[in-house]
Amino acid sequence: MRYLHTMVRVTDLEKSLAFYRDALGLEVLRTKEVPSGRFTLVFLAAPGDSQAQVELTYNWDPEVLEGGRNFGHLAYAVDNIYATCERLQAHGVTIQRPPRDGYMAFVRSPDNISVELLQAGDPLPVAEPWASMPNVGKW
Amino acid sequence: MRYLHTMVRVTDLEKSLAFYRDALGLEVLRTKEVPSGRFTLVFLAAPGDSQAQVELTYNWDPEVLEGGRNFGHLAYAVDNIYATCERLQAHGVTIQRPPRDGYMAFVRSPDNISVELLQAGDPLPVAEPWASMPNVGKW
Repeated sequence: MRYLHTMVRVTDLEKSLAFYRDALGLEVLRTKEVPSGRFTLVFLAAPGDSQAQVELTYNWDPEVLEGGRNFGHLAYAVDNIYATCERLQAHGVTIQRPPRDGYMAFVRSPDNISVELLQAGDPLPVAEPWASMPNVGKW
Repeated sequence: MRYLHTMVRVTDLEKSLAFYRDALGLEVLRTKEVPSGRFTLVFLAAPGDSQAQVELTYNWDPEVLEGGRNFGHLAYAVDNIYATCERLQAHGVTIQRPPRDGYMAFVRSPDNISVELLQAGDPLPVAEPWASMPNVGKW
């Protein structure tokens, strides 16, 4: 038995790739367009960690994707949580829970999927501007 | 960068362990009770695949956990999809999308988290009772 992926639905593939690929730093492993079913699947994973994937499902016909409380978040360990948060900010992503402790941050995808970022290994030294950055909303 | 886990919230820890551990076949890696925060975390993974985890968050104070469309499902490859579905049924789990094709099935957790099961490798030969079993609800 083996974990394959977590699937999340997305309403805008370009915005979602800007988040998951460009801002978060995942790599696209493969894309599958299914015109007969009017959907596109994109599988991504952390670089060098292709076993554990996230699958984006983009249905070509518009739908409203509300969030729910039973799903919590996706979590990734990152090499430098400050660098990751800077990259996310540079792509216009709000850091909802800044890494004030040098260890943990939360952001949200364009479709409100919560993503937890944890510093790999020991926390980084506490540093500005993160240390005094307030939370924004919920995550 | 490395995938850590997908977190889902649960309203009943015993029912959830009966599903994720006993029926689905995941292993409990660790449990963390946090009385000060009034929550319990349980981390599970497929046997032999402990890198990719699912985290159950059980908040001690009752809450309603509705589902949402932005989250899709968790997916696992299994060694024998018929045996897995039999074990799930033996634990009272409805097979919402039976493996009619010897390849794919869907079930739901007690909190309506959709779980996709895919036969590892080639599909199994089509076989009853699965081949003629209808879908139940949505997944």
